[in-house]
Amino acid sequence: MPLKKSWVTSANDAHHPFPLNNLPYGVFSTGGGRARCGVAIGDMILDLQAAEEAGVVRLGTEPFFEMPFWNEFMEEGPAVWAALRDRLTTLLQDGAQDQKKVEPLLVPTKDAELHMPFMVSEYTDFYAGRHHATNVGTMFRGAENALPPNWLHIPIGYNGRASSVVVSGTEVRRPWGQVRGPDDETPRWAPCTRFDIELEMGAIVGTPSERPITVQEADDHIFGYVLLNDWSARDIQAWEYQPLGPFQSKATATSISPWIVTKAALEPFRCSTPAREVELLDHLEDCGPMLYDIDLSVSLRPDGGAEETLARTNYREMYYSAAQQLAHHTTSGCPMNAGDLLGSGTISGPNKNERGSLLELSWGGKDPITLASGATRSFIEDGDTLTLTGAARGDGYTIGFGECTGKVTPALADPYAR
Amino acid sequence: MPLKKSWVTSANDAHHPFPLNNLPYGVFSTGGGRARCGVAIGDMILDLQAAEEAGVVRLGTEPFFEMPFWNEFMEEGPAVWAALRDRLTTLLQDGAQDQKKVEPLLVPTKDAELHMPFMVSEYTDFYAGRHHATNVGTMFRGAENALPPNWLHIPIGYNGRASSVVVSGTEVRRPWGQVRGPDDETPRWAPCTRFDIELEMGAIVGTPSERPITVQEADDHIFGYVLLNDWSARDIQAWEYQPLGPFQSKATATSISPWIVTKAALEPFRCSTPAREVELLDHLEDCGPMLYDIDLSVSLRPDGGAEETLARTNYREMYYSAAQQLAHHTTSGCPMNAGDLLGSGTISGPNKNERGSLLELSWGGKDPITLASGATRSFIEDGDTLTLTGAARGDGYTIGFGECTGKVTPALADPYAR
Repeated sequence: MPLKKSWVTSANDAHHPFPLNNLPYGVFSTGGGRARCGVAIGDMILDLQAAEEAGVVRLGTEPFFEMPFWNEFMEEGPAVWAALRDRLTTLLQDGAQDQKKVEPLLVPTKDAELHMPFMVSEYTDFYAGRHHATNVGTMFRGAENALPPNWLHIPIGYNGRASSVVVSGTEVRRPWGQVRGPDDETPRWAPCTRFDIELEMGAIVGTPSERPITVQEADDHIFGYVLLNDWSARDIQAWEYQPLGPFQSKATATSISPWIVTKAALEPFRCSTPAREVELLDHLEDCGPMLYDIDLSVSLRPDGGAEETLARTNYREMYYSAAQQLAHHTTSGCPMNAGDLLGSGTISGPNKNERGSLLELSWGGKDPITLASGATRSFIEDGDTLTLTGAARGDGYTIGFGECTGKVTPALADPYAR
Repeated sequence: MPLKKSWVTSANDAHHPFPLNNLPYGVFSTGGGRARCGVAIGDMILDLQAAEEAGVVRLGTEPFFEMPFWNEFMEEGPAVWAALRDRLTTLLQDGAQDQKKVEPLLVPTKDAELHMPFMVSEYTDFYAGRHHATNVGTMFRGAENALPPNWLHIPIGYNGRASSVVVSGTEVRRPWGQVRGPDDETPRWAPCTRFDIELEMGAIVGTPSERPITVQEADDHIFGYVLLNDWSARDIQAWEYQPLGPFQSKATATSISPWIVTKAALEPFRCSTPAREVELLDHLEDCGPMLYDIDLSVSLRPDGGAEETLARTNYREMYYSAAQQLAHHTTSGCPMNAGDLLGSGTISGPNKNERGSLLELSWGGKDPITLASGATRSFIEDGDTLTLTGAARGDGYTIGFGECTGKVTPALADPYAR
């Protein structure tokens, strides 16, 4: 599929993240005003609340865009999703009849503040990238026992904390926590010294379910994708995670990119999960290409320094698709809701410069990264800004995600000092 | 504190769960009508929406009880909580001036259907009962390694699934899942055969927070308590829980009792956590009696059979209070919201007939329980109804919780059969 041309000419650049082929959904405000739903097109945002009020977009008898989040729309299901995308394509394409009506509804993106695009109902994080699981397993359990026995049979996941999910740009404060390092006789209360990123994609559930669903149904239920950085306090995690999994180490913040890239926009970039080392049982069986070819990167910018790329990888490196993760999530009868967010798990490639966490890049701190300035990093330092980017590259166009960025600020003074 | 007498005479029985001293908050409907907030008094429910409309209860300029859940009220904080309790006590006490105005606002409980009393924002389950952790640890890791190294230093918890929390009376369907027993060469897809209960208390967060809070602040933020049964699929859990904790094994359902018993009602029953084997760090330090003396029991009724008690225990058996759990939950900066539900963890006593799960009662199935009928149970069978009860016993009165009950129905036909 080639570039679809828009009368919003900035959208027609082959490298612009938001061409007419994309149409990602977000929530924005201008001048400190009320947040409202919008769709990105080139360097502009189409104000959907205004478009609905003006009668330019109308999906039914009820207004859809009165609330500043996409949950209600997502819950409507694939037919309504397709209807909006069709309508927006008609309105924004080159030569559109309604161009004059739509022009006043556009806001320059540079004047807008972006907010959380949806209310996170619940947040689940998976551990479904094989290179990452192998790297981490090798560090902690040795190469022989790198993958847990269940890993090739089910997408391992745990429930995260929805209240801690924040939109790109939100500063992230270094947490305190209880830690016990290898040299500590007893646990200590201390600021995290092994604060880390996890480069992930987040899949957003649109259609609710209340019973076990198939992988194909799960794929149909997914509304779209965002970039996701699951900030992780490795020292807190090491002390707390046995036997019931990560808890406070993952609850400081999880950042997501501000634009929901729809499944429809990603359709041309579908690709298959890798060959299976062991056959999956029926409830997880592959039934079509459900990963996507999306180039991903993570960069670091020290306070006042220059930004540099730490790693590049691709979403197709996952072992399990989001559809398989969602299907697995429903096996127990667990009800799923519009706005549920599923983190893919850290996405690393097979090579050293393709690793999606500092834990892997510095091999647990044993092999620190050297930055261009000569400074080194084992984990994140105060003032560092970490940024994820993602792009699927089509024939003369790009499907971008917008940045997922966050600056780490110093820990609070000890909140329990007496 | 003695019994406070009410003109609703059924409330004055020393064994009635809902005397004037209690005033628990719930949500009810009658005749299939709209759900609304109410308070239990003896065998009656005072309709708070009607009371507000009639001007008998008025807490501010805005109506509080237009929505069928208690979240907005909980968020108001301790001064408003106290104001409502004072007003209800005045209205319902023996000799109340307004008795004639209040009488028409009462609904017989027997005519009412009870609903979820609040929207569960997020659900966290802890593992903070020492007898339970010791029993389970002994079964799985041997007596020498029963408690994990971190257990005496932090309340171990994991995020559960809010969407699966249901009100007492809701039937619970036996889940399917991926399992791999000791005799299985490869994992299988099968209905759970080790379906279990966990006898717990649930603490409900009222006051939101966005930074680390102290144990005393956490106690102040808690609105009230419910009984909680965290249904658990032990065979699914055994296969999935390493390395990131329980996931689908805990996502079928968690049942709660329908009435929120407020912290105010439980005030006379405060008691201390047990002596500490190792001193807790400052952020978890005990600073007053924050457990409660609440008798708990679990009973089983086979389909068509007689109900019998399986175990009796007490909430004071916990090692960590809900306030300590909530304080720990905030250490990373994790935002907490009104309606967050914290499960205490299974509450077992030191003796065999005080164990709060079938896993412990049947010692992993090795020592099945024999019922009065002669039938045995290692785990739950289809048609079994499991019921938790709880009561704090005062001077001539009882603070009851109402039942937390659920009947287990057979697994669906294989949802993935081809």
